[in-house]
Amino acid sequence: MIVEGINVVKELLNSNKKIEKIIIENNNNKELLNILDLARAKNVPTEQVEKAQLERIKPKTQGVIAFIPAFRYCEINDILLEAERKGAKPFIVILDGIEDPHNLGAIIRTCECAGVDGVIIPENRASDITDTVYKTSAGAVVHMKICKVTNLARTIEELKKMNIWVYALEAGGKKIYKADFTYPTAIVIGSEGRGVSRLVKERADEVLSLDMFGKVNSLNASNAGAIAIYEVVRQRKG
Amino acid sequence: MIVEGINVVKELLNSNKKIEKIIIENNNNKELLNILDLARAKNVPTEQVEKAQLERIKPKTQGVIAFIPAFRYCEINDILLEAERKGAKPFIVILDGIEDPHNLGAIIRTCECAGVDGVIIPENRASDITDTVYKTSAGAVVHMKICKVTNLARTIEELKKMNIWVYALEAGGKKIYKADFTYPTAIVIGSEGRGVSRLVKERADEVLSLDMFGKVNSLNASNAGAIAIYEVVRQRKG
Repeated sequence: MIVEGINVVKELLNSNKKIEKIIIENNNNKELLNILDLARAKNVPTEQVEKAQLERIKPKTQGVIAFIPAFRYCEINDILLEAERKGAKPFIVILDGIEDPHNLGAIIRTCECAGVDGVIIPENRASDITDTVYKTSAGAVVHMKICKVTNLARTIEELKKMNIWVYALEAGGKKIYKADFTYPTAIVIGSEGRGVSRLVKERADEVLSLDMFGKVNSLNASNAGAIAIYEVVRQRKG
Repeated sequence: MIVEGINVVKELLNSNKKIEKIIIENNNNKELLNILDLARAKNVPTEQVEKAQLERIKPKTQGVIAFIPAFRYCEINDILLEAERKGAKPFIVILDGIEDPHNLGAIIRTCECAGVDGVIIPENRASDITDTVYKTSAGAVVHMKICKVTNLARTIEELKKMNIWVYALEAGGKKIYKADFTYPTAIVIGSEGRGVSRLVKERADEVLSLDMFGKVNSLNASNAGAIAIYEVVRQRKG
């Protein structure tokens, strides 16, 4: 996979993820020179090329691209181990069919900032971790444990057996502020068009809703998700 | 201006905004037929055309477009009157240079859902209310009072004189949960790249920050804004 952009490549270098090669524009931009230094210090193969040459490989890259292996998904257990490592109750975000990679990237970025232990996405009818997700997550995807499952409803049953409370974020439920997120928590965020699917909603312990005072009364998936994720943060750390 | 999409045209019909004409695809889609009925009931001129003909005027419109006058900005005073009408303390969102119309639309959508009284944007170095903003706000922009000012710093001084607390959302400030939003409140959300500008930050009563626990540690403007806006909602209505 070829990913692009200063933030993305910096986060890759700032991780222990494999980078096959970095191609960088030959100019005096400080951030680019900084990336070149970092890459050399980590023995990552680099190549400096002219702007036009880079544009031919990939346009609009902010002057740097990286060749990396396909994204490596993790297992649910890795997410639980991450919580254990932090000495905190698990905090999982389940994305029930986010189809727009811009939304997926934005949510993963917010998850990373909020200290979410891991994200679960379904195999079908959902965006994969593409180069656009790398970019729109500002590289946050590099640091996030992401698990891809074939059947979200079954995964929710498994999480519940592990004493994790699973909440679906949808209209018509209990006010989100009334949930107690100090317990092990998983929050399901629905897709852009369809919201949380029926089978998933039925299996969730509870449906939680955000207050709505307007005429439109539906938030976009990434904003709704951000609000819910930070309500968990507030209850745990605020 | 030509705006597009089922949600946008529905919200226009659902408001008292002037619509010069609606052009609609000739097919049996229930939502489109519903719009046609609504438009006729409101005596809005309509025209049914074939799909290919509509595509030539504007591509990818979900089958409906509306011709409307340019967006009418309001005055600060209109925003305060809106709060008075609701019998609530003013709740204003100031956008310090949001350049991406997708972000602007998403924030306005969240403002409308959260019952924000009005949005203030600067004249320069910021996205205008374009057709993209109509679309990405899911039509919420139709219902929102938006004021465009030449000098945000001066506007903030005026708001402070009216006893409105002005908070800048930026790293390095007080935890947002410690602010008291039951008072008249204005929240400044910074631009995508530069955050809140220095002059604006200096004039704000206080800088407020969201907790960050990751490596990336910067949210996108629309998600950060959504979290802050709903913290005000929680304190006032939660």
